[in-house]
Amino acid sequence: MKILMIGAGGTIGQKVKAALSSKHEIITAGRNSGDVRVDISSPESVEELFKQVKSIDAVIVTAGSVGMDDLQTLTTAKIMEALPGKLMGQINVVLIGQHHLNEGGSFTLTSGILADDPAKGFISGAIVNAALNGFVLSAALELKKGIHINAISPGVVEDSFVELQPLFPGFNSIPMDRVVNAYVRSVEGGITGQIIKVY
Amino acid sequence: MKILMIGAGGTIGQKVKAALSSKHEIITAGRNSGDVRVDISSPESVEELFKQVKSIDAVIVTAGSVGMDDLQTLTTAKIMEALPGKLMGQINVVLIGQHHLNEGGSFTLTSGILADDPAKGFISGAIVNAALNGFVLSAALELKKGIHINAISPGVVEDSFVELQPLFPGFNSIPMDRVVNAYVRSVEGGITGQIIKVY
Repeated sequence: MKILMIGAGGTIGQKVKAALSSKHEIITAGRNSGDVRVDISSPESVEELFKQVKSIDAVIVTAGSVGMDDLQTLTTAKIMEALPGKLMGQINVVLIGQHHLNEGGSFTLTSGILADDPAKGFISGAIVNAALNGFVLSAALELKKGIHINAISPGVVEDSFVELQPLFPGFNSIPMDRVVNAYVRSVEGGITGQIIKVY
Repeated sequence: MKILMIGAGGTIGQKVKAALSSKHEIITAGRNSGDVRVDISSPESVEELFKQVKSIDAVIVTAGSVGMDDLQTLTTAKIMEALPGKLMGQINVVLIGQHHLNEGGSFTLTSGILADDPAKGFISGAIVNAALNGFVLSAALELKKGIHINAISPGVVEDSFVELQPLFPGFNSIPMDRVVNAYVRSVEGGITGQIIKVY
């Protein structure tokens, strides 16, 4: 397969790329690195990406982080500002990419455990991850050309566990190979409309 | 208790109000009807509401509907336009209301089955309902003064089933008394951080 990976330079992306590159042709795209530059929060930039990179079978997005906030001072204006990155960015990739992907292609997005298991200080993060899951469930019903879509919802992954553990008390460290397997299953396993929870 | 109901004139709101009004003092607020006028999509209007209506123990929001869309022509700009109503409106009520509610008060919001069980044509609706659930889970961790928060996630309710059934093939008709009970449990039952799914 010809696989477009957006965010292949990140903690999860690196390991997923390593696992897939022996069997597939990988093209990487990112804001600051990769074969092609893209800012997924911009529909125009995503349009440009799919004009440059053609004949794609699978798109994997592991880009987009979530910031922290505080319920006492949070406003809906601040939440709206948090949406263009991880949430609307990944949705841009699907809404625009659906018209460019090969027959039987797939999208694999990345949500996260905050959708189900909250942590203090991550209200926008919970909204973003939950909204992504909702999007994937519903988009799966309407994609044409046999295109599949799934979200991987990882917990706090092993490779960033030491750094993130203080913010996620009692959360488990998720082995990278389990996370990587979820992406492989989404790309190669024929499933669609699944939220693969790797907790 | 003194209960502020936003959207008490709607299909669900009417029945919830009827169930609670014998035991509690109910103040109703809505865009076009109710004791007080409010547009929950506007933070300023919600601020004004809580200045007018004081000493509230519980807020129930049953306002906010979701529109339909089409994945083939959907854009993230259109999704962003769908957020201020049901999603950001209810969040406005919590973010602003948290500073006005009585000790031990509660918020009861309304999400919906589309968060888990998608239907064609309701991509923004799925995003909105899922995001609301994510918000409620995380907000519950940070509310002060013993304030509770829950979301009721109803299926297609009995009283709008004939009208909505064509859009929700195979969905069950949910008895109104089960839906009403979920709101009563959220207001009187002491629970918090729960998504009460009435499917």
